[in-house]
Amino acid sequence: MESSFKVLGWLRDYRRADLWDDVVASATLVMFLVPQGLAYALLAGLSPQAGLYASILPVICYAIVGSSAALSVGPAALPSLMTAAVLAGLSQVAPSQYPMLAAALALFSGLLRVVFGGLRFGFVANYLSSPVVGGFVTGSALLILLTQVPNLIGIESHAADAQSMLARVWAVRHELSWASPALSVATLLALFACRAWLAKGLRRIGLAARAADLFGKAAPLFVITVAAAAVHALGLPVKLVGALPQGLPPLTWPMPQIGLLIDLMPAIAAIALIGFIDSYSIAQVLALKRRETVNPNRELVALGLANMAAGVTGGFPVSASFSRSAANELAGARTQLAGVLAALWMLVILAAAAGLFALLPLATLSCTIVVAVIQLIDLSVLRLAWRYERGDAWIFLATAAAVLVAGVVDAVLLGVGLSLAHFVWRTSSPHLAEVGRVPGSEHYRNRLRHAVEMQPGVLAIRVDESLYFANIRFVSDAIVGMLRQRPDTRSVLLVLSAVNAIDVSALQGLRDLNRGLSEQGVALHLAEVKGPVMDRLRQSGFLAELSGAVHLSTHSAMRLIGTPAEPDYVI
Amino acid sequence: MESSFKVLGWLRDYRRADLWDDVVASATLVMFLVPQGLAYALLAGLSPQAGLYASILPVICYAIVGSSAALSVGPAALPSLMTAAVLAGLSQVAPSQYPMLAAALALFSGLLRVVFGGLRFGFVANYLSSPVVGGFVTGSALLILLTQVPNLIGIESHAADAQSMLARVWAVRHELSWASPALSVATLLALFACRAWLAKGLRRIGLAARAADLFGKAAPLFVITVAAAAVHALGLPVKLVGALPQGLPPLTWPMPQIGLLIDLMPAIAAIALIGFIDSYSIAQVLALKRRETVNPNRELVALGLANMAAGVTGGFPVSASFSRSAANELAGARTQLAGVLAALWMLVILAAAAGLFALLPLATLSCTIVVAVIQLIDLSVLRLAWRYERGDAWIFLATAAAVLVAGVVDAVLLGVGLSLAHFVWRTSSPHLAEVGRVPGSEHYRNRLRHAVEMQPGVLAIRVDESLYFANIRFVSDAIVGMLRQRPDTRSVLLVLSAVNAIDVSALQGLRDLNRGLSEQGVALHLAEVKGPVMDRLRQSGFLAELSGAVHLSTHSAMRLIGTPAEPDYVI
Repeated sequence: MESSFKVLGWLRDYRRADLWDDVVASATLVMFLVPQGLAYALLAGLSPQAGLYASILPVICYAIVGSSAALSVGPAALPSLMTAAVLAGLSQVAPSQYPMLAAALALFSGLLRVVFGGLRFGFVANYLSSPVVGGFVTGSALLILLTQVPNLIGIESHAADAQSMLARVWAVRHELSWASPALSVATLLALFACRAWLAKGLRRIGLAARAADLFGKAAPLFVITVAAAAVHALGLPVKLVGALPQGLPPLTWPMPQIGLLIDLMPAIAAIALIGFIDSYSIAQVLALKRRETVNPNRELVALGLANMAAGVTGGFPVSASFSRSAANELAGARTQLAGVLAALWMLVILAAAAGLFALLPLATLSCTIVVAVIQLIDLSVLRLAWRYERGDAWIFLATAAAVLVAGVVDAVLLGVGLSLAHFVWRTSSPHLAEVGRVPGSEHYRNRLRHAVEMQPGVLAIRVDESLYFANIRFVSDAIVGMLRQRPDTRSVLLVLSAVNAIDVSALQGLRDLNRGLSEQGVALHLAEVKGPVMDRLRQSGFLAELSGAVHLSTHSAMRLIGTPAEPDYVI
Repeated sequence: MESSFKVLGWLRDYRRADLWDDVVASATLVMFLVPQGLAYALLAGLSPQAGLYASILPVICYAIVGSSAALSVGPAALPSLMTAAVLAGLSQVAPSQYPMLAAALALFSGLLRVVFGGLRFGFVANYLSSPVVGGFVTGSALLILLTQVPNLIGIESHAADAQSMLARVWAVRHELSWASPALSVATLLALFACRAWLAKGLRRIGLAARAADLFGKAAPLFVITVAAAAVHALGLPVKLVGALPQGLPPLTWPMPQIGLLIDLMPAIAAIALIGFIDSYSIAQVLALKRRETVNPNRELVALGLANMAAGVTGGFPVSASFSRSAANELAGARTQLAGVLAALWMLVILAAAAGLFALLPLATLSCTIVVAVIQLIDLSVLRLAWRYERGDAWIFLATAAAVLVAGVVDAVLLGVGLSLAHFVWRTSSPHLAEVGRVPGSEHYRNRLRHAVEMQPGVLAIRVDESLYFANIRFVSDAIVGMLRQRPDTRSVLLVLSAVNAIDVSALQGLRDLNRGLSEQGVALHLAEVKGPVMDRLRQSGFLAELSGAVHLSTHSAMRLIGTPAEPDYVI
């Protein structure tokens, strides 16, 4: 039995040997948390310190309750993007209220998640197919890349969607200077180069593998520092982060006016849902790698508590970050102690050295987001689907496109709707196989795929789908059509080995089929009816109407139907 | 091969013997068409002659194109109700425009149906389960009964929904007189009594069976005539139909302003869809009785043409009427010639005797609607579903309640949504059966239902559902759970006889399961993989990863897995 609070589990079993791994991982995590916190706060339309505040208590909360050992919860791309979109949409509110409103979004979306997690609503995550999740994550990554363009090229923009961002860039296209784009290109090249070669290069010049990897991880912070130093040394005209207040996160209770709060409810619900889906899908990717299981209800509660913590400490909606979680995992984090330690580092930095971050160029921060987000673009599901089931590939593409064109909420709704429609569509015209006997055996197989013996006068049809309202007419029509081509048929045998359920509409359809066939002097038999289906059919009274019989197996049915002997009723 | 115009078919094959039947049926039809036309026009918020106009050309159009021999298309309860709701919702339009707008609704909803029928979109009707259709028809019947209350008790009301009708009745409760309610009660009693006993009584006093039945059918017209005569003889203070213009239907082209037309588009689409569903489900009920088939695409086109005809001859949206169709069928209509003849009778009546109808009391007309509509309430589907599958029964009740509370359009959307959700919900936690060998046979059955032999070290699980995104996690978790209870298991055999498809998400889930099991030293085998599923699995590369093998049958798999011999690869 698992204890209800994960922290008790990993603290009880904690091994001294893991401590060093967790300390190293925590240092790596901080190197990601600082620039990402600043950058995501700016992406959300807030002042940079909000990102640092959101990197402390939420991280500790998730460590205590969450079920994934390596997941890094804190400032993240998607909730920041959604926060920016919500704030930009509030025309009647003064920008001075934005920090309070962002904190309120975190607090109430967190509360909602805790409630739904308590009600065990985590199963909703199962209704997201991998093409939908893949398309959604890829589309979001592209959207986030687009929102970084203004910072990368050095213009002001609070656009939270692709269209208004592009319009903004187009409007100021004549005022662009070379400084920011040049800095961005240099930083990006340095970051990609470090990722590709630094660890390898250090190892080649004789550094121990572990130390080399660690330096490789630290590269982004190193690149950022060099870029900031270069900007100040050369006096480059680029935008900087600007003043940051020093000191601990404030304790606040963000409470908008009740009318405004009600207006915000759809946004709060959307942030709660999307944040959960985003975070849960990252947790699953990690769990798969580490052979762990994640519990969706506990994840929902843990993420909810982390957001409530962000809300009361001057933060904004948080979620799992894929890049940080992956780095944490690579850095060897054994338990959530790595997260707790990272939060404590952040506290020290905030209390002692926040002023330093004022000197960072915005373009450089955006570059770290770009590098983090590019890793989210994963086309392997798309490639698999393209080969394996084209419809799923189109759902991936439609979901990704919808993120860019219609926003994240509509994209998820579209993706789920398309997945369900695709499923229903597929099951509404099922495969029907006329079966014959594999010579010398008791097995019956599709006559089109196997060399089988057919029995004259009997049409044995295997129905390869549960029967329900959307396909019963198709199936009836198909059977009547097959019968028309074989006018000598005296008996139709439906092999129901693949029929897992028959709903009320389908039951009525079978009743009509039975009546129609018996008027033509054709008996309807059933074989291989599954237990749960048989239980229901017995109750319905249909078996009494049935002109033929119900047989245990296709083989016993075929032996009996052809001969004048009594069929083996198993009713 | 069917000719593309039904009329050519039935005219070519027309037998003299059918003529008398069709003439008798046409007379019966007229006896229904006249009072119903007047009553439904009033229900739609129009002057009574619109109902007579809508009973001529539309009837002929359907006769030419429609695929059902007994269906009576013309003024009907549901489209009248929807027309009233649309007109009542147009606050910016003068009531003098109502006839033109009602005709426009007919014309454009007809056009839409012709287009969608041409595009072969009739299949959408398959997505309506019988609980949804049953609940919808029952709820609509109750709603129509409620809308008749003002006429029955003698008050003015143009309310098209239950709430405003009840509010209106409540508001005028002190002004009610006894005359209309008394007339209504007497008429209803007479109508029900005639239906129950008249034909039987006439036969008992010696009338020929055929003539007795015919008089029975004619009873409503007789009752109406007596009621009207009594009202005028006694000078009862009840509302009358009022003046009716004599003469042929006008030829018009109803064209609202383009802005208004655009505003009306959702209503036009809803009338097109609901009218089709309503009409098609009646056609199916008749077809079942008569052993005919109806083609949904042709029905869509035929109904569309009938509505366009109603639109250009001063009518309003028409549909099939259940009571008229049933009467037509009972009266022995052989072909649509009955409909054509009825339309010609109507033309004669309109040209010669329209003035007579001015004297009919409104309460009496409402009584004929009440009697017609009560027959629509059919609880047999509800009773069956309650016993057979409780979820479908709740869908019936929810759809019926939604008609009354939220209107017909929302009710259909709710019903379809609930049906799909129910289907997905049911398939998302499928039945898994651990199977063992039926002694002495090659058959494997659920160990909980049959006395079977188990083989140690092998866990053979039959999965009773297609694998897809909504259930793959459930299935994986269940298999892992079963494995935990049998730690001696060396091989897991998935029997896929009931798995009709595996989507991309499920493929990834199987891949993870295979990897997870082989790390525990457990091999994953598959058996009885269906042909179409196998084709896809081969393409996906999954079979190369699979730690076990794919077997033709459960029996051959079980024989081989237990022994050290090589499994019979069929890849």
